[in-house]
Amino acid sequence: MTVTAPKGFRAAGVTAGIKASGKPDLALVVNDGPEKNVAAVFTSNRVAAAPVRWSRQAVSDGRADAVVLNSGGANACTGPQGFQNAHKMAEKTADVLGISAADVVVCSTGLIGEQLPMDKVLTGVDAAAAALADDGGHSAAVAIMTTDTVPKEALFTGADAAGTTYTIGGIAKGAGMLAPGLATMLVVLTTDAAAAPEMLDAALRDATRVTFDRADSDGCMSTNDTVVLLSSGASNAVPGAADFTAGLTQVCAELARKLIGDAEGASHDIAIRAFNAASESDAEVVARAVARSNLFKTAIFGKDPNWGRVLSAVGTTDAVFDPDELSVAINGVQVCQKGGIGEDRSLVDLEPRDVLVEIDLQAGEAEATILTNDLTHDYVHENSAYSS
Amino acid sequence: MTVTAPKGFRAAGVTAGIKASGKPDLALVVNDGPEKNVAAVFTSNRVAAAPVRWSRQAVSDGRADAVVLNSGGANACTGPQGFQNAHKMAEKTADVLGISAADVVVCSTGLIGEQLPMDKVLTGVDAAAAALADDGGHSAAVAIMTTDTVPKEALFTGADAAGTTYTIGGIAKGAGMLAPGLATMLVVLTTDAAAAPEMLDAALRDATRVTFDRADSDGCMSTNDTVVLLSSGASNAVPGAADFTAGLTQVCAELARKLIGDAEGASHDIAIRAFNAASESDAEVVARAVARSNLFKTAIFGKDPNWGRVLSAVGTTDAVFDPDELSVAINGVQVCQKGGIGEDRSLVDLEPRDVLVEIDLQAGEAEATILTNDLTHDYVHENSAYSS
Repeated sequence: MTVTAPKGFRAAGVTAGIKASGKPDLALVVNDGPEKNVAAVFTSNRVAAAPVRWSRQAVSDGRADAVVLNSGGANACTGPQGFQNAHKMAEKTADVLGISAADVVVCSTGLIGEQLPMDKVLTGVDAAAAALADDGGHSAAVAIMTTDTVPKEALFTGADAAGTTYTIGGIAKGAGMLAPGLATMLVVLTTDAAAAPEMLDAALRDATRVTFDRADSDGCMSTNDTVVLLSSGASNAVPGAADFTAGLTQVCAELARKLIGDAEGASHDIAIRAFNAASESDAEVVARAVARSNLFKTAIFGKDPNWGRVLSAVGTTDAVFDPDELSVAINGVQVCQKGGIGEDRSLVDLEPRDVLVEIDLQAGEAEATILTNDLTHDYVHENSAYSS
Repeated sequence: MTVTAPKGFRAAGVTAGIKASGKPDLALVVNDGPEKNVAAVFTSNRVAAAPVRWSRQAVSDGRADAVVLNSGGANACTGPQGFQNAHKMAEKTADVLGISAADVVVCSTGLIGEQLPMDKVLTGVDAAAAALADDGGHSAAVAIMTTDTVPKEALFTGADAAGTTYTIGGIAKGAGMLAPGLATMLVVLTTDAAAAPEMLDAALRDATRVTFDRADSDGCMSTNDTVVLLSSGASNAVPGAADFTAGLTQVCAELARKLIGDAEGASHDIAIRAFNAASESDAEVVARAVARSNLFKTAIFGKDPNWGRVLSAVGTTDAVFDPDELSVAINGVQVCQKGGIGEDRSLVDLEPRDVLVEIDLQAGEAEATILTNDLTHDYVHENSAYSS
């Protein structure tokens, strides 16, 4: 259930010595074809890391043969030397694989504002190339972890109209700086379906819009976010766009849940669903405003169903609603009815890790759900005690 | 140095029994004239508390004779009964003072979503009226405290063109939910200058725009924020608008600093100054984005000059800048130069409580400063362990 489950892919994860901890820190995912199609989405942060700037160019022609990824350093805010280093990672990978550097996607994650130890990185690329294997997806998933406590992988299997099966596999990392317009994360998705770059691109944008874009652990957007989708066509299946998009969305949703489920220091995974909204955009804005409220997030950590903090966050948005018609349920208990006091808040059980907050806007029929986490002592500890 | 320093004002703070702690929880500020002019600004939160809805009407004619304030309950999200209770507070105050209820401003602060214990509130109004004194400003400042550890007061003394002196006094409360478009706070300002409601209103909007509106402790906007300014004209001074606005801004700035300095659980007071911006609005947007970054705020708590988290927050805005021209100084050390690595981050001393982050946008000549706090274990503790 990983990026080497689809036919036509090899992968590896090795220890290059970039991380002081001595844990695996360099990964390679290679598409052996016959197709070498690619689509990708990147952070919308205007302060984009060097590998993001490189990779935007690399995927622009719809073709990529390989993805090289490192943890242990973000190569962000590193100036012209940082861009040269991202370029060197692509060239080295191209050299050892006998491909073109322009077809190599580069991803980095770790501390911003430090140059990568390039000698270790380049030696690591050699080691990873030597370790490439048909079942190497899991080791690649491990090598891209930073503060993640578990590797994240997902798989979907479908069939085209002729009954030919295909698979979509994915690996992801990301545990802090999980935010909008992508979480701090690197995701590699592979498929052995036959799909043109245009179809890959449309499917990827549809899938990420309702999955990764709605995973908002701490409101902080990374400089390095990358989601890349490679297709080999090795299954000979030719799925329709709708079916393929649905399968891809399922893989992305599973990876997004796993990211939120492993967010730094979190003790609750919170789904905030705004419904009866005038538009999907309104629903998303409302749910995200609640997901961004530190007061709401600390209350959930304290197992306090403090619905006033939900309403005060909703009230900061410009979504269509009448404040006197808002209702809120927390884990099924209707604590707020029409802007006022509803069922007894002491009925809400916040012991389980999963929390569902439902906000009824009484303004239409659209809805959206944002996934977030609570704000805990461990979040503060992890993000104050360690540079990352 | 408080609301009874200007001539023509009496105040009191008493224990009405609204707070379970038995601490003072009801305050009254009365303008004995001869002028009874007023201006006020309120939260922009669309989920506005009942007392805010009441008070917006009360000040709309430019006249107010008294302000009644309670802590121990926000009277927010309390439906029609909540509005009736705010109305009752105004009527009771009017009765005991022999004035009109329409000239009474009502302010409440505390937990959202619970009805006020009106028997205690109304008895408290009697007690406060009986305790009104020319030097009662300090006791009023104490009675509006919630999680504040100290009362906040400020004073300005000026003179008009003829040399006649006047004073502006203020009291404020607010320690959490400190945010934009006002912090969670109640502020009463008084002056014995002669000033028409129009001048009061213009001066108050100018002053709050660059002071309270730029105090953003935790990004959370309250349902109850109110800043009310009363003028008695008792000094016979008739200051010019510019001088009066400057004095008022000084009082508001001092109170805003005191609010940030007493924010829940904070261990650092952080001034984020964006300069060389294309517009003041750009500067404010950039500084506020950094002030809202939990990752930046936890880093400062950990005394980690993690400038990458500053840049990643700046990059989420649509302000005019070139990412490769951004520079950042933390406490005077130029840690980021032109989008890349600057001076050694270990040179930054984050032991002092005051922190200055300066962001050079290289896009113009405007600037703005947002005041915020770090994100600490104590913030999480205070906001998870207690309903407020």
